Amino acid sequence: MDIYKMNIAVLRIGHRLVRDDRTTTHVALVSRSFGCNILYMTDVNDDIKSTIDDVNNRWGHASNFKIEIVKGWRNVILNWKKNGGVIIHLTMYGLNVDDIIGKIKDNSNDILIIVGAEKVPKEIYTLSDYNIAVGNQPHSEISSLAIVLDRIFEGKQLKLNFESAKMKIIPSLREKLVEKNYF
Amino acid sequence: MDIYKMNIAVLRIGHRLVRDDRTTTHVALVSRSFGCNILYMTDVNDDIKSTIDDVNNRWGHASNFKIEIVKGWRNVILNWKKNGGVIIHLTMYGLNVDDIIGKIKDNSNDILIIVGAEKVPKEIYTLSDYNIAVGNQPHSEISSLAIVLDRIFEGKQLKLNFESAKMKIIPSLREKLVEKNYF
Repeated sequence: MDIYKMNIAVLRIGHRLVRDDRTTTHVALVSRSFGCNILYMTDVNDDIKSTIDDVNNRWGHASNFKIEIVKGWRNVILNWKKNGGVIIHLTMYGLNVDDIIGKIKDNSNDILIIVGAEKVPKEIYTLSDYNIAVGNQPHSEISSLAIVLDRIFEGKQLKLNFESAKMKIIPSLREKLVEKNYF
Repeated sequence: MDIYKMNIAVLRIGHRLVRDDRTTTHVALVSRSFGCNILYMTDVNDDIKSTIDDVNNRWGHASNFKIEIVKGWRNVILNWKKNGGVIIHLTMYGLNVDDIIGKIKDNSNDILIIVGAEKVPKEIYTLSDYNIAVGNQPHSEISSLAIVLDRIFEGKQLKLNFESAKMKIIPSLREKLVEKNYF
């Protein structure tokens, strides 16, 4: 599988300003480092955008990941549907990811992953093609997103090539080794 | 592999009260739902403990997961070493998890996973047997913990049996289905 041929977007819903800023930053970092193309948000603290801009600037690009602010989540979902993409919603009430992910990947290279913060509107459950659970226990949406992306990309997302990076880590058993490139 | 024979503990360091409460709650939820036995913390908001107690009470037990408050992180690490367990520290500067996890699992069933919040003391890098990265990009410690546990348990953690649960989810494509047991 060519990971760069996949088009994976994340839609963050129910973000509450301040209260959810740090968890949403984690959602953004996971989306970026695991090779997603875009994170749609309806409401955002500008600090999150500037954190990600700064990370992209220093650590490079694998999938030209960016954050896009949208007016409402419904249009993002409906547009995705119209264009033939698949929509999955992460929830502890859904089907086990490992029972269904193969079928989803067979259906489309374009996947929109909905990640909720607070209580999610019922409509999300019915608009989604698949409600998917990473275990049926109370869990973290950050963890769930990471595992679902890992299943989609078959672990290859951990070895993505980040281009135009000013800083690059040399993996090390005991040290912090960073190679610096000045363009 | 019998997932119940593994003894996996998580040590949360550098937790800053209030600021890190929500991310640490996510660390606790991942630890519990993915079959860890214990989460050691040096500083804790009692709300996190009561959240987990409440979750255990309603959703049952797979590994008798609990949170233990300790005076300092150094003794936890030294005791773990003394008893022959393996210590891994999650950091973006470490070796790629997929290059090293097989060797770690061959060495021991007792694994302590160190998860940092803010800047981690240098000593953690040298006291650990393995510094491990889930990709060498800025990322979320919650995501990293989830992926490392997934690699340790080979995905079987998503089908753990939670006993004595008052509530149990029936996985569903579009609905919220919950079975309630009253003891």
